[in-house]
Parts: sequence; C-alpha cells; structure tokens
Amino acid sequence: MALISKVEAGFYRIPLEVAVSDSMHGEMLAFELNTVRITDADGAVGVGYTYTCGRNGAAIDAILRRELPELLIGEDADRIEHLWNKIWWAQHYGGRGGPTVLALSAADIALWDLKGVRLGQPLWKLLGGNADRVTCYAGGIDLDYPLEKLLAQTDGNLKKGFRAIKMKVGRKRLSEDVERVAAMRRHLGDGFPLMVDANMKWSVDEAIRAARAFQPCELTWLEEPIIPDDVAGHARIVREGGLPVAAGENLRTLWEFKQLVATGGVTFPEPDVTNCGGVTAFQKIVHLAEAFNLPVTSHGAHDVTVHLLAAAPNGAFLEAHGFGLDRYIAEPLRIEEGFAIAPSRPGHGIAFDWQGLEALRA
Amino acid sequence: MALISKVEAGFYRIPLEVAVSDSMHGEMLAFELNTVRITDADGAVGVGYTYTCGRNGAAIDAILRRELPELLIGEDADRIEHLWNKIWWAQHYGGRGGPTVLALSAADIALWDLKGVRLGQPLWKLLGGNADRVTCYAGGIDLDYPLEKLLAQTDGNLKKGFRAIKMKVGRKRLSEDVERVAAMRRHLGDGFPLMVDANMKWSVDEAIRAARAFQPCELTWLEEPIIPDDVAGHARIVREGGLPVAAGENLRTLWEFKQLVATGGVTFPEPDVTNCGGVTAFQKIVHLAEAFNLPVTSHGAHDVTVHLLAAAPNGAFLEAHGFGLDRYIAEPLRIEEGFAIAPSRPGHGIAFDWQGLEALRA
Ligand SMILES: [Mg+2]
Ligand SMILES: [Mg+2]
Repeated sequence: MALISKVEAGFYRIPLEVAVSDSMHGEMLAFELNTVRITDADGAVGVGYTYTCGRNGAAIDAILRRELPELLIGEDADRIEHLWNKIWWAQHYGGRGGPTVLALSAADIALWDLKGVRLGQPLWKLLGGNADRVTCYAGGIDLDYPLEKLLAQTDGNLKKGFRAIKMKVGRKRLSEDVERVAAMRRHLGDGFPLMVDANMKWSVDEAIRAARAFQPCELTWLEEPIIPDDVAGHARIVREGGLPVAAGENLRTLWEFKQLVATGGVTFPEPDVTNCGGVTAFQKIVHLAEAFNLPVTSHGAHDVTVHLLAAAPNGAFLEAHGFGLDRYIAEPLRIEEGFAIAPSRPGHGIAFDWQGLEALRA
Repeated sequence: MALISKVEAGFYRIPLEVAVSDSMHGEMLAFELNTVRITDADGAVGVGYTYTCGRNGAAIDAILRRELPELLIGEDADRIEHLWNKIWWAQHYGGRGGPTVLALSAADIALWDLKGVRLGQPLWKLLGGNADRVTCYAGGIDLDYPLEKLLAQTDGNLKKGFRAIKMKVGRKRLSEDVERVAAMRRHLGDGFPLMVDANMKWSVDEAIRAARAFQPCELTWLEEPIIPDDVAGHARIVREGGLPVAAGENLRTLWEFKQLVATGGVTFPEPDVTNCGGVTAFQKIVHLAEAFNLPVTSHGAHDVTVHLLAAAPNGAFLEAHGFGLDRYIAEPLRIEEGFAIAPSRPGHGIAFDWQGLEALRA
C-alpha cells in the first residue's frame, strides 16, 4: 500500500498547426490541456490529463489545484473506486458534469497510470488484455475543406496506415453533404469503413432525412446527429434513419450512457476517457455496452484510449485524433495497417515533454 | 438598447451560524457564494449569484472571470435568449453541467435583474404576474437533531409565520425516520403541510419501502429519495411508493427535467435558479411542468425564486432557506401567514452588503 503524497496540476494552451472547424464548434485555433501528476510515498508517479476546445480549462485547473489535493493526499492510491466516489460526492453539489467531471477524469487516469506503473503492466493488459491492438480510424475535422483538400487529406491518412476514415457533415445544404460523402465513397471504394459526424447540428427529423440520404454510401455510422440531451430523439433516428448511430463524446456520466443505451438510442457508444469520468467510468461504459450487445468506439485522447478499447472484446474503431498533442509526447500512437498498437510500457506509457509544455502555460 | 460594458465576479466563503447536516452531504460548516455584476453602457447594474455547499466555487469563479466577460461585453443586454445560448454553446465542450451551468445561472439572473431594473418592474410581474406572493415552507437541515431540538426548531418556524415545514430523513434505520415523522405530524396536527427530504440516500426499493411506511403521516412530498441520475427509478417510486415525489435540485438542465417529467418520475419538479441555468431555464421548467399538469416548487435562493414561483399559476411551496446569506442582504424575504412576499422593488430587489462581504472573500 502506497499513500498519495503529492497532486500537481498543469494548465496549458496548445496552438493547432491548422485551424479546424465543425458544424457546431466553429473555428478552433487552440485547445486547452489540463494535466495532473499524482505521486505516492514511494515516489512513483501517475499522469492524467483532460482537454477542452478552448474554454473551461481555467475552471478545471481550479478544481485540480484547489479541491483534489485535499481529497486525495494521504489516501491509498490503489483504492480507485473509493477515491472516485469520494471525489464524486465531495463535488456533487455544483458538479455532476462539466469541469468537475473533466478534472475527475484526469485524476482517475493518473491513478490508473500509477497503478500500472507500480504493477509493471500496460493498462490494456491490466484492464482485460483482450488484444494489444484495436481497429482505428482517422477523424478528420474538415467540414469547410473543399473536396480536393478533403480527398488529399484522405490520401495522406491512407499513407499513414489508416484503414477507416471519418469526415464531417452538416453543411448548409444536405445535398452538399451527400455529394461529398458519395465522392469519398467512390474515392475509397466499396467496403472501406467510412463514418460521418454531424456534431449535433440537426433536429431529429433533419437527422432522419440525412441518414436516409446517406444510405447508399454504406456508412459505418452517423455520429452525433442531434444534441446529447435528446434521448428519445436518438432512438427515433436509430429506428427510422436506417444507419448505425455513434454518440457519447458529450455525455458526462455512466448514467447518461445507460439512458441512451437502454433506450436504443445508440449503436456505437463513444465515451471520451477525459470527460466521462476517467478509466473507471470508461470501463463501466464498455461493460454496459457489452451487456447490450454493442461495440464501443471512442473520442479523443487516443494514447490513453487505445489501452481501454484493446482491453475489451467489444472495443472497435479507436478515434485517432490528438489535437496536435503528439508534438509533446515522446512516443506517439503507432498505426499499422488499420490498427492502433497499445504500447507495452507500464501504465498508459505516455511521456509528456514537460519542458516543451512549460512555454505554453495558460 | 444598452450594451453590456462590465462583468464583475465575486467569490466569498460564508460561514454558517450552526453546522447543518443531511444524509449525503455530511456536516456543512460554510457555503461558497459566487456573485456577478453586469453593468450596461448607461450605468445600470444587474446582480446575479450562485452558491455551493463548499466545493467548486473556485471553478465557478474562474468561469465568471475568465470566460464570461469576453462572451458578454459589447452585447445587447436585453437579448437574454441569445446570450444564454451563446454562453451555453461556447462552453458546451467541457460544460453541459457542473460549475459551467452554475456560472451561467448567475449571469442569467444578473441579466434578468438588469432588465427588471431598466424597465422598473419587479421580476414577479415582468415574468407573468400571477400573484405577488406564493406559499412557502421552512426547509430544515436537521437530520441529526434529537427529537426535542427538531420540535423546538419547528415551533420557531411556526412563530416566524411558516405554515409548511420540511424535515430531513435518511437516518440509519427507517424506523427512526418513521418515529420522527410521526412525532412531527402529531406536533403539527392534521392537514399541516409536512414534507421529508432523503437527499439521495436510498436505493429505489428502499425508497419505495420508506414511502409506504410514511403513508399514514400524509406527507405533501418525499424529496430526492434516490440519485438524480436514475430516471426509471424515480418513476417506479412515484408509481409504487404512493407518495408525491419532489426532485430537481441536482438536475442541471431543462432536458434533465424533461426526462424526469415526461417519464412520470416527479410530482413536484424542484429547480434551483442558481444551478439549473438561471431565470431563463427556470421559467421553461415551470412551463414544462404546467404542460404536464404539475406544480413547481424550488430549492435555494429564495430571494430570487420568490419572484419566479409567484409569477406562475403553478408555482407552489417556495423553499425558504438561505444558508445564512440573509445577514448580507438589505431586506431579507418576508414571510406572512405561510406566504412568501415577492418584493415590489425593480428586478429581484436584492441589495447585497458588499462591504460586509468583502471580509469573506475566498
Ligand atoms: Mg464527434
Ligand atoms: Mg432537498
């Protein structure tokens, strides 16, 4: 048993090499990175992180600095369920979502990393060990790209080893979306896994209309057609749209996933380990999905998530998309013939370039 | 049209005169107060606030200081729906709950106050004008009080003009709860509105068992029997417990209320204007409830909420409970023969003692 002796927070603003855009978030020029390092009495260290599209980072930092040290220091680092619930309930009033859950997610990732480091096992093996790799796709944030640029980006992704690709939809007119998706299907050929992501742009009926229009393009899924709050709407889209639906990057708890899954509103639950409550909650969502006979995909933080999807029999299609964070990580995610390879280093195996990050303090 | 020229945040720690406790939050010694003052180009000022049981306040402060000024300054203060949605979507990723919604609630209250001040109307009239008063109850936080102290507190509340009272339940054994509730019923006499609040302590089946055990005591409602995340569980308790159920102080959006209301999981929706998204969201919840033929009660912030419940035909049983904030408000809520009186001052009419608060900066 090793007691937690130190909890250190970091808050950085990471500029994007190229500005990206989708249907609801507009143009994004930078993202915020919040890190947390948890040290135990033996000097072992676990690292966790979360991120935002540009806002709320200061609030996450306030929680990591001001609330979590007091809740964690002196506790047994291995009792992660106990610590998760201690944080959840201490922060419950004024929490239950938002920056509170993102901070909790980062701390939980750090605790799991610490456990892996202490036990000398990579997380994918510690958490189930189904395989050391998982199918993977390139997530393009390309709504405003002209078609040629979209296809050129696609060729680049094929060259990098990707064998599945997601593109954005939700342009002014549905016909534009349909043309772009059809062009991508022709470019990639039959049978190549292609997904589309609407980033919550549509009403339920618009989404059903779009799903039906996309049917000839044989999509693997339609992602976030509507706001995450409309559970019954998701169920209608699954039933009436005739396409598999992915959703979850904007759900913040196991219970939100339970609602959506149990109502039949999602085909590919898509948690983000940095905003759903960390590794602890992500695993429960994976198991919930398995109980409902569903695969699980992911959003963001591919270097942590590769472990979580590889660990489980129903893990599929890791989203590879790092917001340029790869520049500050020693050994970024390896992609081989459509698979993302889970590192064999203990814990999650991410080594941040802390010196490089220093210049980006927010 | 008056453009917003200034947004100022305040963050205070208010000690409680006596420590309070309930079944899930443990002992509370202080609460956090976050304020926001919005000034327009003419120098008119609106004031909003939110609060927590002791954590997350620093995160709320970070949002009020770091995100909201940039989103609000230069905007038309009267376009509150536009501003609400601008903040909601700017903060959506990493938001959708928690400190983000508490900060939004405070800002929205300030905008409505500003509008009332500019138009020279009290909010209760501006927002509907159903009546200038609403039935009201004293919310006791008294789980650990011995019975004599509970009854003495009750006599004090009767003397103050209350004609409805809520007590805490959720002690170690249900039989203790039943004895205490029965003693209160005997003390108050038949027909006196008595409510109980379990603060999420129970499982669904424990809650149903408790509700049935309380049936002879003719309770007005059973509040928060289980965690807010279990919508289907609430519906079972309403159906099988045989008591009206109040819930909502831990729901953070209109959509969470919609889920619970549409599933038949609540009899008295109970939003808190300082954590559900402000006056704008509170009003929509009131209207949603009316559409489902339900009354609406409230949680916290009685000095703002008295206006919102008085404004609507289905407003009932304002919770009077101010966490000791009354000491820092010029004219605290007036209670007369069971009614809370909505002030006739423009806006919400709360004048904080800013100098007194200065000593309590967090
Ligand atoms: Mg997406
Ligand atoms: Mg309550």
